[in-house]
Amino acid sequence: MRHLYWENGALILLDQRRLPTEEVYITCRKAADVTHAIATLAVRGAPAIGVAAAYACVLAFAESATSGNSIPQQSTFNAATEALREARPTAVNLAWAVDLQREMYATLLAQNASYDAAYQALLLQAQKVDSDDLAQNKEMAKHGAALFDRPVTILTHCNAGALATGGIGTALGVIRELHLQKKLITVYMDETRPLLQGARLTAYELTKDNIPCTLICDNMAASAILNKKIDAIIVGADRITMHGDVANKIGTYGLAVLAYYHNIPFYVAAPSSTFDFTLKDGSQIPIEERAAEEVRQFQGVCSAPQNVAVWNPAFDVTPAELVTGIITEKGVLTAPYKQAITKLKEKVKQ
Amino acid sequence: MRHLYWENGALILLDQRRLPTEEVYITCRKAADVTHAIATLAVRGAPAIGVAAAYACVLAFAESATSGNSIPQQSTFNAATEALREARPTAVNLAWAVDLQREMYATLLAQNASYDAAYQALLLQAQKVDSDDLAQNKEMAKHGAALFDRPVTILTHCNAGALATGGIGTALGVIRELHLQKKLITVYMDETRPLLQGARLTAYELTKDNIPCTLICDNMAASAILNKKIDAIIVGADRITMHGDVANKIGTYGLAVLAYYHNIPFYVAAPSSTFDFTLKDGSQIPIEERAAEEVRQFQGVCSAPQNVAVWNPAFDVTPAELVTGIITEKGVLTAPYKQAITKLKEKVKQ
Repeated sequence: MRHLYWENGALILLDQRRLPTEEVYITCRKAADVTHAIATLAVRGAPAIGVAAAYACVLAFAESATSGNSIPQQSTFNAATEALREARPTAVNLAWAVDLQREMYATLLAQNASYDAAYQALLLQAQKVDSDDLAQNKEMAKHGAALFDRPVTILTHCNAGALATGGIGTALGVIRELHLQKKLITVYMDETRPLLQGARLTAYELTKDNIPCTLICDNMAASAILNKKIDAIIVGADRITMHGDVANKIGTYGLAVLAYYHNIPFYVAAPSSTFDFTLKDGSQIPIEERAAEEVRQFQGVCSAPQNVAVWNPAFDVTPAELVTGIITEKGVLTAPYKQAITKLKEKVKQ
Repeated sequence: MRHLYWENGALILLDQRRLPTEEVYITCRKAADVTHAIATLAVRGAPAIGVAAAYACVLAFAESATSGNSIPQQSTFNAATEALREARPTAVNLAWAVDLQREMYATLLAQNASYDAAYQALLLQAQKVDSDDLAQNKEMAKHGAALFDRPVTILTHCNAGALATGGIGTALGVIRELHLQKKLITVYMDETRPLLQGARLTAYELTKDNIPCTLICDNMAASAILNKKIDAIIVGADRITMHGDVANKIGTYGLAVLAYYHNIPFYVAAPSSTFDFTLKDGSQIPIEERAAEEVRQFQGVCSAPQNVAVWNPAFDVTPAELVTGIITEKGVLTAPYKQAITKLKEKVKQ
């Protein structure tokens, strides 16, 4: 599924807000178009946001520089990419990708690079973020599938699939690999209110690929675990701290508690770019709260009194002690997480 | 709120499917109208279904008998009320109310009652089911409010309010009483997918009565418990067994697990008519599974691929060991439940 790609100097995005009913593509020619697409969830999923942001930095550069002239100073590039970097607060991949491009820009300045050379170098790095993500998805899929030695039924939440990444997905990458290896009985997927990424996106991806799956409402997960013989829960992540605390789509924490209570493993699948090595624990992760209208209505149809107060956090934090393992492209991390994540950090920084 | 009442030989029902956007009343002149209203959730909530069914038996009688003639035999009345009794499988109040009217009918036959006398007796008993439910709600409210000695924040699920009963509600009756006694900080209410009884009905009732409340999606409950200082969860019930296992709206079981994990009390508020003294444990409760379309759409708007498989159980069973107490009109029952429920049964049968 090509849902995010560079073509003729623009970033093309499949508008995920309109799935599954319509497949409409957005052409982003300005960095602000990408910022808007991220803020309004036309593109979402931590790794996909990172890839989109890396490309958006190329657009930001082209807007703030003039072909033929020497490239502007660092502060100009930083200013041009700042709104992008702030488009959403929770997924670390966004800041990570922008910072990567800013570092590249510093190098380019030091090298006295021309406009054309800088454009090419930034684009090349964006393409590398994209292709690395695909490669990491595949590695994660293998490490994740190796956790199971017999056919299993998996529960997943939100969309941690191809649409959320530059590749085959994080959690859904593992599920796709299990299916390939004939170790997948079926997948239960939470619809994931309020924006229904499970119903709209995961169901779209899995039915399209003929992977056996069943859609449930979020509040059916406990019953499914008890009555449908769920063997494990696998989800993605938006940010992981040094302690192994995991920010992910709202509802993840409740699932982790359910997994603990029912004594089934709870796995998180995330590339190293989702780790925030600067944060100690989950209390430091900013949790985005979104508009009340998302809860009071769906696709413009009213589902609650319009004057009722709403609390609409987009993410929650699952403490490390509820996480059985974190599936990364470098292998599966297990407790003690601080030690495992410190090792991962060293590997990544090499 | 008058949402269910008898007027000019018909049962008038507020169509709960159209709340909160429209307040439309349905006039049921035939028993089949009530059966249809129950099956399609125009009226729902275990006690309200019981009250509606008791009135529907009057309509069934009027249809199967002729004024001036002697009243037909028992089998005729039973046949005329059978579809009604089977309209939904989980809430025991439905069968309970129909059986109550069938017992009354047997007595009337034994007394050689006239058509007019029988009609009046059945109507009188329906009105008693209705007024008893209100009285029991008030008793429950007092017993429930007495559980808290300081202001509290409560989480509730689905709608166990006036709309679900003949009175002020079961769980919402307790919440209303806490509010009256100035012991309520605020209420968090799950929207309760797929049919959104929390968003549509509980939010409607509480905002109408100016009771402080905040709407959340079902998957936000765990985060709310952790971050919003929820002191207790209070829900209603559709059927309770001798062992104290509780069938209630899907999602209740997951909330009970969350309450257990976070060490907060989990209360069920239900009148004695919701107890099924013939069932040993929760495994014997039939769980209604409803149409896939309820999950694939959201208020009529498509929210998932139309070919995706769906599992849509309308209820789940919470085992007694997760229930801190059952608030009834006769007091709050606590473990050991078999003993407490046996005592309740004796009180009720007197």
